[in-house]
Amino acid sequence: MRTEKDFLGEKEVNKEAYWGIHTQRALDNFPLSGQRVHPQLIKALALVKVAAAQANLELGYLEEEKALAIIEAGMEIAAGKLLDQFPLDALQGGAGTSTNMNVNEVLANRATELLGGQKGTYLVDSCNDVNMHQSTNDVFPTALRIAAIQLLLPLSQAMAELQNALQEKEAEFAGIIKPGRTQLQDAVPITLGQEFSAYAQAIARDRWRLYKVEERLRQVNLGGTAVGTGINTPKEYIYLVIEKLRQYTSLGLARAENMIDLTQNADVFVEVSGLLKAAAVNLGKIASDLRLLSSGPHTGLGEIQLPEVQAGSSIMPGKVNPVIPEAVNQAAFQVIAHDLAVTLACQSGQLELNAFLPLVAHHLLHAIELLTNSAQVLAEKCVRGIRANKDHCQLLVENSLIMAPALLPYLGYEKTAAIVREARQKNIPIRSALLESQLMTEEEAERLLDYRELTRPGVAYHKLKMKSLGGEV
Amino acid sequence: MRTEKDFLGEKEVNKEAYWGIHTQRALDNFPLSGQRVHPQLIKALALVKVAAAQANLELGYLEEEKALAIIEAGMEIAAGKLLDQFPLDALQGGAGTSTNMNVNEVLANRATELLGGQKGTYLVDSCNDVNMHQSTNDVFPTALRIAAIQLLLPLSQAMAELQNALQEKEAEFAGIIKPGRTQLQDAVPITLGQEFSAYAQAIARDRWRLYKVEERLRQVNLGGTAVGTGINTPKEYIYLVIEKLRQYTSLGLARAENMIDLTQNADVFVEVSGLLKAAAVNLGKIASDLRLLSSGPHTGLGEIQLPEVQAGSSIMPGKVNPVIPEAVNQAAFQVIAHDLAVTLACQSGQLELNAFLPLVAHHLLHAIELLTNSAQVLAEKCVRGIRANKDHCQLLVENSLIMAPALLPYLGYEKTAAIVREARQKNIPIRSALLESQLMTEEEAERLLDYRELTRPGVAYHKLKMKSLGGEV
Amino acid sequence: MRTEKDFLGEKEVNKEAYWGIHTQRALDNFPLSGQRVHPQLIKALALVKVAAAQANLELGYLEEEKALAIIEAGMEIAAGKLLDQFPLDALQGGAGTSTNMNVNEVLANRATELLGGQKGTYLVDSCNDVNMHQSTNDVFPTALRIAAIQLLLPLSQAMAELQNALQEKEAEFAGIIKPGRTQLQDAVPITLGQEFSAYAQAIARDRWRLYKVEERLRQVNLGGTAVGTGINTPKEYIYLVIEKLRQYTSLGLARAENMIDLTQNADVFVEVSGLLKAAAVNLGKIASDLRLLSSGPHTGLGEIQLPEVQAGSSIMPGKVNPVIPEAVNQAAFQVIAHDLAVTLACQSGQLELNAFLPLVAHHLLHAIELLTNSAQVLAEKCVRGIRANKDHCQLLVENSLIMAPALLPYLGYEKTAAIVREARQKNIPIRSALLESQLMTEEEAERLLDYRELTRPGVAYHKLKMKSLGGEV
Amino acid sequence: MRTEKDFLGEKEVNKEAYWGIHTQRALDNFPLSGQRVHPQLIKALALVKVAAAQANLELGYLEEEKALAIIEAGMEIAAGKLLDQFPLDALQGGAGTSTNMNVNEVLANRATELLGGQKGTYLVDSCNDVNMHQSTNDVFPTALRIAAIQLLLPLSQAMAELQNALQEKEAEFAGIIKPGRTQLQDAVPITLGQEFSAYAQAIARDRWRLYKVEERLRQVNLGGTAVGTGINTPKEYIYLVIEKLRQYTSLGLARAENMIDLTQNADVFVEVSGLLKAAAVNLGKIASDLRLLSSGPHTGLGEIQLPEVQAGSSIMPGKVNPVIPEAVNQAAFQVIAHDLAVTLACQSGQLELNAFLPLVAHHLLHAIELLTNSAQVLAEKCVRGIRANKDHCQLLVENSLIMAPALLPYLGYEKTAAIVREARQKNIPIRSALLESQLMTEEEAERLLDYRELTRPGVAYHKLKMKSLGGEV
Repeated sequence: MRTEKDFLGEKEVNKEAYWGIHTQRALDNFPLSGQRVHPQLIKALALVKVAAAQANLELGYLEEEKALAIIEAGMEIAAGKLLDQFPLDALQGGAGTSTNMNVNEVLANRATELLGGQKGTYLVDSCNDVNMHQSTNDVFPTALRIAAIQLLLPLSQAMAELQNALQEKEAEFAGIIKPGRTQLQDAVPITLGQEFSAYAQAIARDRWRLYKVEERLRQVNLGGTAVGTGINTPKEYIYLVIEKLRQYTSLGLARAENMIDLTQNADVFVEVSGLLKAAAVNLGKIASDLRLLSSGPHTGLGEIQLPEVQAGSSIMPGKVNPVIPEAVNQAAFQVIAHDLAVTLACQSGQLELNAFLPLVAHHLLHAIELLTNSAQVLAEKCVRGIRANKDHCQLLVENSLIMAPALLPYLGYEKTAAIVREARQKNIPIRSALLESQLMTEEEAERLLDYRELTRPGVAYHKLKMKSLGGEV
Repeated sequence: MRTEKDFLGEKEVNKEAYWGIHTQRALDNFPLSGQRVHPQLIKALALVKVAAAQANLELGYLEEEKALAIIEAGMEIAAGKLLDQFPLDALQGGAGTSTNMNVNEVLANRATELLGGQKGTYLVDSCNDVNMHQSTNDVFPTALRIAAIQLLLPLSQAMAELQNALQEKEAEFAGIIKPGRTQLQDAVPITLGQEFSAYAQAIARDRWRLYKVEERLRQVNLGGTAVGTGINTPKEYIYLVIEKLRQYTSLGLARAENMIDLTQNADVFVEVSGLLKAAAVNLGKIASDLRLLSSGPHTGLGEIQLPEVQAGSSIMPGKVNPVIPEAVNQAAFQVIAHDLAVTLACQSGQLELNAFLPLVAHHLLHAIELLTNSAQVLAEKCVRGIRANKDHCQLLVENSLIMAPALLPYLGYEKTAAIVREARQKNIPIRSALLESQLMTEEEAERLLDYRELTRPGVAYHKLKMKSLGGEV
Repeated sequence: MRTEKDFLGEKEVNKEAYWGIHTQRALDNFPLSGQRVHPQLIKALALVKVAAAQANLELGYLEEEKALAIIEAGMEIAAGKLLDQFPLDALQGGAGTSTNMNVNEVLANRATELLGGQKGTYLVDSCNDVNMHQSTNDVFPTALRIAAIQLLLPLSQAMAELQNALQEKEAEFAGIIKPGRTQLQDAVPITLGQEFSAYAQAIARDRWRLYKVEERLRQVNLGGTAVGTGINTPKEYIYLVIEKLRQYTSLGLARAENMIDLTQNADVFVEVSGLLKAAAVNLGKIASDLRLLSSGPHTGLGEIQLPEVQAGSSIMPGKVNPVIPEAVNQAAFQVIAHDLAVTLACQSGQLELNAFLPLVAHHLLHAIELLTNSAQVLAEKCVRGIRANKDHCQLLVENSLIMAPALLPYLGYEKTAAIVREARQKNIPIRSALLESQLMTEEEAERLLDYRELTRPGVAYHKLKMKSLGGEV
Repeated sequence: MRTEKDFLGEKEVNKEAYWGIHTQRALDNFPLSGQRVHPQLIKALALVKVAAAQANLELGYLEEEKALAIIEAGMEIAAGKLLDQFPLDALQGGAGTSTNMNVNEVLANRATELLGGQKGTYLVDSCNDVNMHQSTNDVFPTALRIAAIQLLLPLSQAMAELQNALQEKEAEFAGIIKPGRTQLQDAVPITLGQEFSAYAQAIARDRWRLYKVEERLRQVNLGGTAVGTGINTPKEYIYLVIEKLRQYTSLGLARAENMIDLTQNADVFVEVSGLLKAAAVNLGKIASDLRLLSSGPHTGLGEIQLPEVQAGSSIMPGKVNPVIPEAVNQAAFQVIAHDLAVTLACQSGQLELNAFLPLVAHHLLHAIELLTNSAQVLAEKCVRGIRANKDHCQLLVENSLIMAPALLPYLGYEKTAAIVREARQKNIPIRSALLESQLMTEEEAERLLDYRELTRPGVAYHKLKMKSLGGEV
């Protein structure tokens, strides 16, 4: 153990630890959720430190030797090294100060090592050097934005894959006629391909939204320091550090015009979280539909078969369950809950700061990742392997009354309703009920009830009339 | 009473009612929330009916006499007449069918009247004529989008007014120095004007978001009928009816490329609701801050005074409470709850339809209106009348240690912390503790602790050095 | 118009209005949600005023003439008169002060009238007389508890009716064997009656919870006045007023031991709301199941038929939808949203008071009522009229593989799984696959696969063995 | 690696792993949240297996050698051994089947080892032996209830500690008079001790609720197997296994009367979660109040000082923040979000099962633990060390107008309000304004405005009158 000191007194720290007294105190203070700060946030913080050191170096505020050591140490962490040196609980008080200090301390000790010193000797100081011209209050929200953007990229890719998988099925199932159902009741014919096109389109909308929201996250308050006024920070640094940050992150970041605003207001995270929730709603809808369509095999809808990925029951041998969509449904529920946590924290900011950003970071970043994993698993383990029960779909169409709406333009609402109810009561096909009613010839009925035609825009009766006049449709 | 009939049997309807049997049955079926369908949705539905009648007239599907009567009746409702003829509960089963039928029936009876007939004689038929080439499933979501856009316009105006009111205060309070607080603890100096600039900026962001989201709502599935395939609808009608709808609504509506998608997926409403929630979070943050800043008058922060709009207590005479911000806080809570209702309903769509759109409509439209009213009341009844307690702000700054961070670049973290703690323990000003420490001359201290400078970017110590060199800052 | 005055100045009030200047100001201040304060809360407030007047009369603080007039006026309102005199918006700032003053003013003017005076002359004073020894901060939470208890009674009755309706169906459907489904996949046999028993049991649990929670609401802080310390209130009054309140409400109310606690803490409302949410979850589950079980009529599960309460579609003649369960699902969603609003408001109390109780009252009371109406409608319009499609249920059982688990104790997991998969691939009954496998005689198979036996505890194979030994099961 | 087989084919499993093919497939299928199944649930499942093995042994269904090996292996896991053998993601499809199979497999392999065999040889079979007479659908909900009860015990203890810490402060601060604030505005005098009594009382209420809810969790559906009908399970086993479970868990568990109900309905978890949310609301309220009361040190309320547990800022040396309450606020937000996740999953059960119990388990168990840790940290790291700024409290009382309500019974509402406003405008003490008004003698004023008296029930004016008559109060 080594002894470290701050203005509150002394504390023992493990000799091997890169972290210091501030982290050690926070470790004691927050034994809460058992979950650590998200590593992507740590990496983003490291990049912010690197950019600051670079700017301070170029402006002459930081000695070259120290600056270069900080930069090297920061790049190591950004590359995923030393991540075990960030042991703090995700639920921490202090608006992220503890996580910022954890990064400062690890960088200070690692930089000290790089300069030939021993951990704890602080040849590079965590506050005066690593944190120079910074405050948790500008550094933390900036890093959170960077981490969110970085995690949104794989999400976009996963959603693209999912859209692609759905579109493949759209093409594959284009010829499969099946009953469309509204309110779970037999409605009108549709193709299985059309159903998958609707899923694909919803995911396409999500992709577009996620793309747009990234813009919103690019505005950062770095340079605003404690409350956004830029106290204790040279103007030239404020301009330069953003430029450096753009370079180190390869992201199109920009300084917020009003840094006081971005230091205290967290509505952008609510916005992003709201869009994630919309994506969750789409994933959940698709998952629920897949479970309905594959219900059975004998006593459900049975229109499709999901790939069998594991045995389903310890007591019902041979049973296979739709476990992938079920997992996706749960992920969607969780994203909705994450959104509530984000909202609660964001609405509780007070005056110059939102002290609850650590909770925002935790739930927002995990929500993005969960959606990414869900989209991937849904595409790979489920959608790509779906097979259609074509014959069963056909049978369902033929045994139902879903062609009845085609009669509406010909017979009007009341007569059609009467025929439908007749067919239902006698349990006979609509065709038979129609012929029994003697309202139409057999040939007319044949043409009117062509269910392939009924999956496209157009009024079957008009087409019928045109055909009878020798015209084209 | 008059007797009407449908395929389920007969039912009595009040002779004076414009509605018919379908509405009457729904009235009996849904005695649930005691709240009616939002009138903006009724008006939007009427416009959809007008556009459909016009398209059907031009394409020759509907006789001119009937079409013109439907159009006249529809324009009456769109103008706010006959709104007492829509008595249905907002919480209704059936994906909006009852509301659609209510509109169909009222239009049919009103059109019948216009043609000289009596209510109940249906010279114009509610299904075959008024609802021609339509389904609840395309008409209802289309009308919901129109109603939402129409209510978003006044919201944007109200937010603009609020932003304006905040910006006026930003200018008025630009010269008032006060303590900035982070985590409710004394932090660094800020001006009251800067605080209001942050509020104004947050509202500006909301305006931009609301503007963008309107685009997302413009895509409609009108013409898709039952499941989005366009069954029973002539292609030419599908194209024409959107054009007519654009004319009658003056909105830039467009036909969705994939109408099957928009008939079943409700994620756009989740998106819109999510943005409303972000606006609610901003309003709530501002309201909470105003309550904190005006707390007192003697035992709180007491930096500002809100206009006194009503007596505050039945037992504490003379007490005046921040009732407007309190109401706004509650409105923000309610919008967050509305968002959850919208999310729950939207995620529960099944297969070709979301049966729960009536709930979505109810909560979404009321959320928009509530935000509009809240922004207006906050601007007019509160923000515009806020007065600053300038002297008290000044006193707070002088009696606190918030200038201490200015010492950091000069003395480093540890020495500064020591002086701060010395001042706190002895309860003396930072200036005195600094001079006692003999780390600085009186003149240096004077310049370093100029709190006006501390509300701007820049390092006081650098400026000090430059000044001592005769330079400009 | 008449002119009234308070310490903020003068204001015009309609001459006919029973309310006064405080109400009039609040009317101007809160044009927010368009929804009024719940009438049950108004009535409960009136009873609190009656009890206070009675106590003050008996203790000699209030002249008999005034007291009797207040009591008479209060009883009128408690009986439902003058409810149009409470026009305030449910979303109001001020912790309920405006509603309390509205009640004070209406009672003062009505009492004045009863004493022969004119409205506005205030022979009885709204603050000094009607509100004597009270504060909004003890009166409002007390009335909210009373109103909640009063609305919980009809909810309990409605739930009892629903349980009863479900139990009737449990008995009626006891003999109908059908496929049990887990994860929407064919599982094992069950009876339709057993399914309804599970629904009935869940509702029974709700009833028990609602009964227990009423106890929690009985503790009131009346007498605590402004912050619960009882300032300005004689001790003897504190004891007597509760006794009077018990008499006038016929409820088992009790004075809270710690009135400071109950004045500021609102966790009890979160608790009650959480139990309402549990009830909503049960109603929602039942509604969703009924929609699934009645899906079809030809392409769904089709095991039951719901009563037809209205035509289902404007484009699909003859279609009937499960609108009652759909409405109940939406009601359940709304109750969950109400719970969030209640939670948000309750967690935002500060120091001696929760300023957001008006929102709590609004959402809590409406949630109770909505559940009451939903349970009633579900019982009367849906459950009582459900019919079983017995033959279809039987057919589903026979055409499926759900008897397979009966083989498990005889053949073990792997062999059973193999037979199941054989049957599935060849699309033959489990019986045939079993016999083909030659693992069992026909008689054994017959006995083992008796699906009636499979809906009860017990191992078919053990019974088989016992039977073969001549024993009883 | 070793090769294992199920009816879907073969799969490689690490030779050292105690888990088998079912777990291995699930590992591949659910790479979602990155969080593992809660260990308490694993331990509870192990106890269920032990009880089942014991029952099956006593009834002669399971050979003694196998049974004893299963029991020994199960007791090892219940004692915390082998917990690294449960690597599955908490978000898994399949209603918990994968976790059940994971436990079955680890027990089978460990029992095999105990019998001298090698992992993978399965001398004890995971389905036929370990899972004998069980289904995931009775085992998983039963284990979840057990795990919840087991975690509720430490929560109750932590809440008791917190209540105790608050009560100590109640006693310590009994003599400290301070301003009571309603709606953040100066109200009437209160003691700091009274404030802490209100916190303590709220926590006491939570304890009582948590105690009551435990009863609700004791009903289990073990023995109901797949859908609650008890298929494939001997009646005698159903009775015996609960008895065994009671013995092994030392909990008062009872068999549910209607096991079909408990297999499919999850409302009890919503109820428990709702109560946890009420506790979170109380913790959050206390935390927010502590942050308000300790705000400053110079520009806030400054009535109390929280213990300093860590440095507060990287840029503001010497600043110390209320990090413990801030962390508790975040924990409270998270518990509210957990409640939403639980609700969403519980309301989505379908027919005979709720497939989403894994999500319920994850969020419910973590919510309990988080509350436990939060209560502990709040008590130990914050409440116990709070110090009062007695002089500052006194000063605030004297400089404010909060004694004014004492005038109300003497002067009436209007005159009192006038004096208050006079004092406010002239910025003079209420006493001075009162004397200036010449409505009272100096001695009367003195007695009337005794603020110690004002923190207790009673009307100062009455006491004054009695004193002047020589009476006792």
